[in-house]
Amino acid sequence: MYPGREEVGQRSETVRRANLSAIVRELHLRGPLSRSELVARTGLTRSAIRALVGELVAGELVAEEAAVRLGTPGRPSPLVRLVPDGAVVLALEIAIDSLAVAVVGAGGVVHELERVDRPRGHLSLDEVVADLVELAALARSRRPAGEMPIRVAVAVAAIVSRADGLVRFAPNLGWVDVPLGARLAEALALPVPVEVDNESDLGALAEFRRGAARGADDVLYVHGEVGVGGGIIVDGRPLDGIGGYGGEIGHMPVNPDGRSCRCGSTGCWETEVGEGALLTRAGYALDGGREAIDQVLADAAAGRPAALAALDSVGRWLGIGLAGLVNILNPRRVVLGGLFSRIHPFVVDRMDLTLDHYALAAPRRLVSVVPSTLGVDAPLLGAAEMAFEPLLDDPAAWLGPRGALVQLESA
Amino acid sequence: MYPGREEVGQRSETVRRANLSAIVRELHLRGPLSRSELVARTGLTRSAIRALVGELVAGELVAEEAAVRLGTPGRPSPLVRLVPDGAVVLALEIAIDSLAVAVVGAGGVVHELERVDRPRGHLSLDEVVADLVELAALARSRRPAGEMPIRVAVAVAAIVSRADGLVRFAPNLGWVDVPLGARLAEALALPVPVEVDNESDLGALAEFRRGAARGADDVLYVHGEVGVGGGIIVDGRPLDGIGGYGGEIGHMPVNPDGRSCRCGSTGCWETEVGEGALLTRAGYALDGGREAIDQVLADAAAGRPAALAALDSVGRWLGIGLAGLVNILNPRRVVLGGLFSRIHPFVVDRMDLTLDHYALAAPRRLVSVVPSTLGVDAPLLGAAEMAFEPLLDDPAAWLGPRGALVQLESA
Repeated sequence: MYPGREEVGQRSETVRRANLSAIVRELHLRGPLSRSELVARTGLTRSAIRALVGELVAGELVAEEAAVRLGTPGRPSPLVRLVPDGAVVLALEIAIDSLAVAVVGAGGVVHELERVDRPRGHLSLDEVVADLVELAALARSRRPAGEMPIRVAVAVAAIVSRADGLVRFAPNLGWVDVPLGARLAEALALPVPVEVDNESDLGALAEFRRGAARGADDVLYVHGEVGVGGGIIVDGRPLDGIGGYGGEIGHMPVNPDGRSCRCGSTGCWETEVGEGALLTRAGYALDGGREAIDQVLADAAAGRPAALAALDSVGRWLGIGLAGLVNILNPRRVVLGGLFSRIHPFVVDRMDLTLDHYALAAPRRLVSVVPSTLGVDAPLLGAAEMAFEPLLDDPAAWLGPRGALVQLESA
Repeated sequence: MYPGREEVGQRSETVRRANLSAIVRELHLRGPLSRSELVARTGLTRSAIRALVGELVAGELVAEEAAVRLGTPGRPSPLVRLVPDGAVVLALEIAIDSLAVAVVGAGGVVHELERVDRPRGHLSLDEVVADLVELAALARSRRPAGEMPIRVAVAVAAIVSRADGLVRFAPNLGWVDVPLGARLAEALALPVPVEVDNESDLGALAEFRRGAARGADDVLYVHGEVGVGGGIIVDGRPLDGIGGYGGEIGHMPVNPDGRSCRCGSTGCWETEVGEGALLTRAGYALDGGREAIDQVLADAAAGRPAALAALDSVGRWLGIGLAGLVNILNPRRVVLGGLFSRIHPFVVDRMDLTLDHYALAAPRRLVSVVPSTLGVDAPLLGAAEMAFEPLLDDPAAWLGPRGALVQLESA
């Protein structure tokens, strides 16, 4: 209703590019569409769609398939789809327990995906960059020779300054103000930009576009591991905040006289619902990692009281924190990822009851809280989605004079 | 970066309307601009600006004044401004202690503003509607005969369903599911729509456009009275949430084992920072209203320990709650309105220190927390801004064939 700063007058010569963008975006998000569906979805005329799709076909970004009959009167309408090899991106992830890489094609087709365990704890930038470069080379070696990603994006469990690819604070890695984007760009030596973003923001984007939050415009993605991160989508757009730090829901004070948080504060939500809180309450050592969580869940399944009580407590604090977030954000869908997706069956009842008590009735009625459907790969797939954005925003920039995939100008 | 659902292809015949909108919006938000400035701000060509401004002049929405020389080469550029009488809106407010009305002209010019005290406590819809209609008639009687507002908007301290003008929950008024919008429309008997929104959301809009948050794109407005409400602006757009209930920051649990809240929950932020918390801690009765708050502030100025301790406690809890919101939203500006604007000098040091402890360093560094500059009128002026939105979105709909201010189609 109230447009942002970027909305200004339009020269008619920009309309063509905007229209190409509308078509490519629809195809990327919805999959193949008939020309008639494109007319309906974009509001463009039939002849405009024909001409613009023709440009995209010449640029090898799009292919048209045999006409399909839709059961409606008139001529059957050709089916338009993105070419999955027509544009690919390289997505990388630095997770708490693993490193991952994917080569993803237009339309979200996952061509290659590799994930390798990594030891928890502090790693040097050099080590991480070297491992990622090796993983990327492996994935790319299985792709056609000469294929060049149009963009590289990295998901990392950290507070990130997206504008310059700087990792501001990654307690799990022991990083403060580390130039991840610049060093990866140098080491990968690809002639395309490398973007860096927070894993929870990217998890939110992936679940919103291709996962448990599809079709919802107001979304909260809650990612639990050692720390707790969040990604927020407001009316279809990510809530970045002024410095790109938005969504740090793990550091919302819910128990201000409670436990110290590794961020320096006291009583942050993650001190009550993070991996550490669950393990401590269940009587396990903090450094047990994924195996210790598996053990807590096995104990709970076997009816052991300590595990059940620990999960009950985490379920209660999950409900308390979510109540605040539901009241603030009034989302349609809350997606629980990472640890919270794994413990969901054990905490859902307690969490829902607590949410009923602490949330206002009006927003409570409208929200559904569901586990992630993309699971551990949500942040990685979100990185791919972010990497596709420049193409979706202005496909014309990638339409070379002879149909080659050449970026004509910097986006 | 990631466009919302409304962004689709553009027919070239819609471009003219979008361009008229861009011009009127710039003039409404920034005040008079030269044609050259309009060229620079909208990205339109000089000849397009000339033609479009001509249309708006013919429609009597805009006037051009004698050319001004800007000290730059070339011909001096005429100054373009909105005509304050060319389009007016009627804004109403139901506050905790008062009712108010304003007639506001294009560009935000306040032609008339009336505020009258009302007794606190439960009032019937009939009483409130009758009083507002009387106030509106008084304000309109001082305006030119025959002047018709293009839209009416009402700010109310309540959880509001904006789509249908229903007040879902207004604890101060004792209202649950009350059809305020429909009843006001009927009683005002004006041939224009009546919109209803939450006072904090509208306060945020006013401070963002014309007050303490001007120039900031990520804003949190915190309105304190008996209850605590919030209005959130994300990248220049209000965070409404899926049902329009977004921004209920007063009901974020900050002390889950604390006091009962009138919403039914426990330990909501407003139980620690609302008027009741301040009065109780200072040793005053809860029903003292504004006078009791004045007394607490006078006591504090005189160095009385109970008042100082009460303000210190509210300052601390303000800092704790704001820390969570700063971490979640990463705003540029936090504007404290209502009660919080009045107590600001007494709580600012404690609030800032607490915020330093509980907020993450990265978003903390980027935010400034300031008192409201529009004061008690912020929600009323925000209602006026909301009422102008249809005109700013599509001024062409108000350009009649002979320049009369006629709405050609429903917005």
